[in-house]
Amino acid sequence: MNASYPIRILSAGLLLIAPADRAWTVDTLPSWNDTPSKQAVIGFVTRTVMESSPSFLPPAERIAVFDNDGTLWAEQPIYFQFQFAIDRVKALAPQHPEWKDKEPFNDLIAGDMKSFMAGGEKSLLAAMAVSHGGMTTDEFDKIVKDWLRTAKHPKTGRHYTEMVYQPMLELLAYLRTNGFKTFIVSGGGVEFMRCFAEETYGIPPEQVIGSHGKVKFELRNGMPVLLKLPEAQFVDDKEGKPIGIQTIIGRRPIAAFGNSDGDQQMLEWTTAGSGARFALIVHHDDAEREWAYDRKSQIGTLDKAWDEAKAKGWTVVSMKDDWKRVFAFEK
Amino acid sequence: MNASYPIRILSAGLLLIAPADRAWTVDTLPSWNDTPSKQAVIGFVTRTVMESSPSFLPPAERIAVFDNDGTLWAEQPIYFQFQFAIDRVKALAPQHPEWKDKEPFNDLIAGDMKSFMAGGEKSLLAAMAVSHGGMTTDEFDKIVKDWLRTAKHPKTGRHYTEMVYQPMLELLAYLRTNGFKTFIVSGGGVEFMRCFAEETYGIPPEQVIGSHGKVKFELRNGMPVLLKLPEAQFVDDKEGKPIGIQTIIGRRPIAAFGNSDGDQQMLEWTTAGSGARFALIVHHDDAEREWAYDRKSQIGTLDKAWDEAKAKGWTVVSMKDDWKRVFAFEK
Repeated sequence: MNASYPIRILSAGLLLIAPADRAWTVDTLPSWNDTPSKQAVIGFVTRTVMESSPSFLPPAERIAVFDNDGTLWAEQPIYFQFQFAIDRVKALAPQHPEWKDKEPFNDLIAGDMKSFMAGGEKSLLAAMAVSHGGMTTDEFDKIVKDWLRTAKHPKTGRHYTEMVYQPMLELLAYLRTNGFKTFIVSGGGVEFMRCFAEETYGIPPEQVIGSHGKVKFELRNGMPVLLKLPEAQFVDDKEGKPIGIQTIIGRRPIAAFGNSDGDQQMLEWTTAGSGARFALIVHHDDAEREWAYDRKSQIGTLDKAWDEAKAKGWTVVSMKDDWKRVFAFEK
Repeated sequence: MNASYPIRILSAGLLLIAPADRAWTVDTLPSWNDTPSKQAVIGFVTRTVMESSPSFLPPAERIAVFDNDGTLWAEQPIYFQFQFAIDRVKALAPQHPEWKDKEPFNDLIAGDMKSFMAGGEKSLLAAMAVSHGGMTTDEFDKIVKDWLRTAKHPKTGRHYTEMVYQPMLELLAYLRTNGFKTFIVSGGGVEFMRCFAEETYGIPPEQVIGSHGKVKFELRNGMPVLLKLPEAQFVDDKEGKPIGIQTIIGRRPIAAFGNSDGDQQMLEWTTAGSGARFALIVHHDDAEREWAYDRKSQIGTLDKAWDEAKAKGWTVVSMKDDWKRVFAFEK
């Protein structure tokens, strides 16, 4: 064992070394119950950072990728970014009298969510286009931040940025303390997520990967602006996740965290590399403190990825059993 | 002045503070002559990192972006990545007997560069497609690294990774020592550049932004691979540079370094932000130690961006006058 190891680990992750060369933690992941899931996380990190370990990897290789919706923050009753789009349509309605007679905007303005949702993807994309396109990137940034400051979740009455999972915040911090670089790789809009990722998760904008629309460079009175167009450029979901990782990070992660079938390919890509690899799926099975949904859910469907997790031995976190608490605001 | 300032700066960039509160350097940028260009760089960095300065910015905001071809390494007589594509076509020729009668491959195989170049962009794109598409990302990585290890520059006989500008290597290190995060933002292929950027420039893959082709996720015998397709997905040049910066970094840089009209929009976008901003253009005016070219050059044309640099007071580096040496291998 490297002589500098105990001090380095002690200062990094409050790890104590047990006599049998087994790492254990004090004060790490306090919102996690002491179950096999927590032990799997700590075991993986310990194997990766211990210089004496055959699975040791230098910090540059310690790339960890996290899905956002349903993995770092909640996604019920609808993706929060869709709620933003809906709220935005309502806020813009007075400037668009023609929307009163136009699907799907008329449903939103009338508050008829059932009819709106019946329009499926087409309706959502129409609401996304007018709420996410037609303004500069700076303007969009301000609109989203204003919304995050004021909007409240319909069930909990909390700000959306309070609807983040406390155990996952601890996990992000634990990984970073151990030299990992943490990235978000999400189907959510990259510019939407960047409005809160740094403050909420400690993840800087350049480590947020997401879906994004086309952008146009323009000079306005000699000043350059970037105009958001209402057309998709890249969808960072399913097969898109490993592609986004390759294109933007350019290095295969060693750990990946998700909660749905949209994360399956990211977990496959991550675990197919050689050496120490870790894949974790958050299973929403806590109807009391959060929500319970999986195979049949419209949002955050967990079906095929769950089967693969069982077959391949990926860690499946039970929110109910593995987490002492879900949200920081819980009693 | 913050009490911790002199020590912090001394440990960071070997700056000595002269009596008139003017920062000066010892051992910083040793390959730069003591000209206004060097003073402009150091003045900007000092203003940005001095906590007592009205232009002070925290490290998270210290984003610096660098073009690659002609800014960090040479680009004559043709872009090195094009040379790779040409060499690759020649290497693949025995497996493609049909190329003997097919433009532009027949010209390359016959070594008739004049006819090949007469084909212009179309010929280059054809060579790019067969050399950059049709293999997995891992296979491409290996092919490029093998080429970099063996190929030699036709004029100097040096490896291409030796054709980097020593003053720019010092500038990259100086910025990082002062808390800057350095990115490449280049029209070159992102996966090509990542094969040497970390070792040569100290820039990790996730801080390299470049042009890239379409990528396809596939399972081969149950193992995921990413297949490079011979179609462009994003061209990181001209207007594409600020778009790439916005999409991938998500934060406006405070300093930008380029050498050609392809960098103009990146420098405009960078300097249009509020607070301290810095833009620098490397002017190739040293026919003896490197090459001399600007307005009329086919490669690395510097025309409109030069005019704008003069009008806006961007720093224009004369390789001849501002640099003590260009390449590390010089006597």
